[in-house]
This record gives sequence, C-alpha cells and structure tokens, in this order.
Amino acid sequence: MTDAPTLTVLKLGGSLITHKDEPESVDEDSLARAADAVGAFRPDGRSNRLVVVHGGGSFGHHHAAEQGVSSTDGIADAAGLATVHRAMGELNDVVMNAFHERDLAALPVRPLSVAYRDGERLQFPAGAIETMLAEGFVPVAYGDVVAHSGKGGTVLSGDEIVVSLARSLGADRVGLCSTVPGVLDADGDVVSRVDSYGEVERTLGTSDATDVTGGMAGKVRRLLDLEATASVFGLDDLGTFLDTGTAGTVIGGSN
Amino acid sequence: MTDAPTLTVLKLGGSLITHKDEPESVDEDSLARAADAVGAFRPDGRSNRLVVVHGGGSFGHHHAAEQGVSSTDGIADAAGLATVHRAMGELNDVVMNAFHERDLAALPVRPLSVAYRDGERLQFPAGAIETMLAEGFVPVAYGDVVAHSGKGGTVLSGDEIVVSLARSLGADRVGLCSTVPGVLDADGDVVSRVDSYGEVERTLGTSDATDVTGGMAGKVRRLLDLEATASVFGLDDLGTFLDTGTAGTVIGGSN
Repeated sequence: MTDAPTLTVLKLGGSLITHKDEPESVDEDSLARAADAVGAFRPDGRSNRLVVVHGGGSFGHHHAAEQGVSSTDGIADAAGLATVHRAMGELNDVVMNAFHERDLAALPVRPLSVAYRDGERLQFPAGAIETMLAEGFVPVAYGDVVAHSGKGGTVLSGDEIVVSLARSLGADRVGLCSTVPGVLDADGDVVSRVDSYGEVERTLGTSDATDVTGGMAGKVRRLLDLEATASVFGLDDLGTFLDTGTAGTVIGGSN
Repeated sequence: MTDAPTLTVLKLGGSLITHKDEPESVDEDSLARAADAVGAFRPDGRSNRLVVVHGGGSFGHHHAAEQGVSSTDGIADAAGLATVHRAMGELNDVVMNAFHERDLAALPVRPLSVAYRDGERLQFPAGAIETMLAEGFVPVAYGDVVAHSGKGGTVLSGDEIVVSLARSLGADRVGLCSTVPGVLDADGDVVSRVDSYGEVERTLGTSDATDVTGGMAGKVRRLLDLEATASVFGLDDLGTFLDTGTAGTVIGGSN
C-alpha cells in the first residue's frame, strides 16, 4: 500500500459469476468467493480506488442472441434493447447485493445511460465514475446495450468497457478475473508474462486455448495497448491481485 | 408538424403517476392516461424528438427521507443510496413497460450512471441521450441520487433534470405535466401566460397555491430562465401539448 493515487479496474468475467449454459443462472459459489475478495478492498478516494466491471454471462448472451443484437449488429427495437438491458441489470442487482452484504461501498453504473457508439468509436463519459471514486465509492459497470449512431442499439461488452475506462481514467492496474488461471501455453501451463504481440501469436496463435478461453488472444492484444499493467488470473488469485496489483499472467504495462 | 428539428422535453410529475401518500404505489389510471398520450408520439430522430423525465413520487421521497438524503444533504452510505436508486428505478420500470405496451420506442436513462454534482453545479453529459434521440428513441430519465463531490451522494430531482437537459440539448419546447391544470391565480383560475418574475410574484407570491402545488413559484422562475417555451398543464392537456407545443400556462420562451 502506498499513498500515491492508485486506480484499479477489475473485470469479473460473465462466465465466472454465472452458469454460462443456463439462462439467467448465477454461479452463487463463485460470486460469493469473488465478493469476499472484493469486499475486503477499502476504497479511500485516493490511494485505493477501484472500478469493477462484470460481464453479462448467461444473463446477457442469451437475451442478446434472442433479440438478434451483438456488438456489431444493431437493432432499432427499443423493447428488445430494454429486454437485454433489464436482464443484464438483474445480474448487476445480484452483484450489488453481494457487495453491499460485505459492506463494500458499491454503486451501479449502467452503460446504456452514459455510453454510446459514435460510428465505430465508443464514447464513455466518465465524470460520474470519477466523482464516485473521489467520494470513496466503488462504481460497478457491466456489459450492456448502448445507442449506436446509424445502427439503433448494439451490445457493449464488459471487455470493451474495461479498456475504455482504463484509458480514460488513467488506471494503474487492470485485472481480468475469469475461469482460467491466466494465459495458457500449448501445454496448459500459465505463462507468467506477455510483453509483445509476437509472444501472443507464438503462445496462443494456433492453440485450442484460443477458442476455449473466449478469444484470449484478442483480450491480450487489447491489454497490451494499455499503459496500465494488466493481469489475467483466476478466482484463486483475486485477493493477491487486489493486494499486490498483479497475479496470474502479467501483460505489458509501460508504467 | 414541421420538418425543422424540434425537441420536446416533457416532465411527468411524480405526484401525477404515483399516490403520493402511499409508499411505492403507482397511480395506474393516471399513468395509463399519460402513457396513452405519450404513446401517440412518433419520434423520427429529427423533427419529432422527445425526452421524458418523471419524478420519484411516493417511490423516491419515502426512501430518500428514510435514508436522510436530499438535494442538499448528502450521505456516504452506498447501500442507502442504492436503496433510493433501486426504488426510483422500479417506478421507471413500470413507466417503461407502460410505454413499450404502446409501442413507444422508449429507453431508460438512469441519472446515477451519468450525472454528478461538481460542488453545487450539476453536470449531466448528454451524449448518450443525443444518440438515442437521433436514432429515433425516446430517452426516459427520472429523479434519482447522484454522486456529489464533497457530500457523498445527493438527490437529483426531475425538475432539475428537465432544466439541465432543456438547456444542454437546446430544447424547443418544455412541458410540465402535473396534478394542476396550470399556474393558478388567487381565484384558482389558470393563468394563460407568465412572462416575467414580477408576474410570478404578483400571481403566486403570497397565495396558498404556492404550497399546494409543491413550489410552483420556484418551478416557474426556473422555466423563465430557459430559452425554450415552457408550459405547465394537467393530464387533460397532455395530448394538446404534444400536438401543438403549448398548453395550460405558457411561460416565457425567447424563441
């Protein structure tokens, strides 16, 4: 712990906190373990600031597929967009309750209200989040639908939110907590560091792990573009990440 | 109807759509009538654009009083703020359903996610709302709690949202639909026009109507400061307002 301003952006994967194959089914055990670790965090508005982002898991993907909306395919049907938004909001309610039960000063941030796509460019004005952070709150955003100029509405993934907020808020540490313990090599072992695109290709390029982990190569590439030090890790390492700032596979980071 | 870009901001009063004395009780009849009138609106992304804002009524005030939070008195308790936010969100869910049942392309905008107070100054970045409007959606915002620098979180009223958005979006028409048919004079008759602060004082200054209408004098003063033509009217005139742009008492308007 240091007195310098430190901001952490933590993603809790949708497949971690929900049962991915059952629509709208929370993985209560994993959520409780994640909330225990995050609930130990003590935000102070300055040297300890945390933004949490969670995925939609089986709450989001199911409804999004049913409504025919994705991050690139938009729909103009407001009731359809509201259905996806509501389902994702219900998962957020469950996450918020788990945090509040552990006395974490969490407040929800619903991307539909604030973010939008201007052409292909994501805009996520962060003034409300910055004010929450300075007041000692932990903003909790999540995968949602957003208005998209020329396309009606499209899906905004938790991963996109993480990258956008890490950049606009100037995060020092980024963590992706998912169902895998890190970036895995061809033998299934956790790679301790990834520092370049070339390493991503060598490690993940043609291995089966690329699909199994839901586009890990793409995630790693986006994390390499950030100034923040990023980590990819599993639930066992969440406490370590929050305490020390790194865990699992450490990715890039120019600071 | 004209082809020029026209933007209307409509407030549905909290006391209109809820039973004010009963906690979390929707006035189903009034809401249905309001939704019928608003549901006839056909947004086109340009010459017919509409933002709806509704009050918290018996969903908001009850919980806000219980948590000890107001627009000036902040609280640092995130769970308390989330309780008020959730109650107001439940009323919004009911309003959204009423709109969707009438095929209005409504999308919710939750102020906690986007607005904040920087000292006493309200900030409400409107990019998401502008994108929704251009895509032919009707954004529906409501009285909520927001992060407030130095105070934790405070209440943001529907009336404040109306004034802020009317200004930042450059609204042409503003309408306040409530339980009274307009600004009333000492005899209880509707005043057709109010053009200056002086008239407000003469009409409302010392009359009982000031209290009965929940601070009508203050509302009128804030509306006089807008460039948009504003109207204060009751449910009977909501259709007329949406069709013609004015109804009940017409207030100021430099355009």
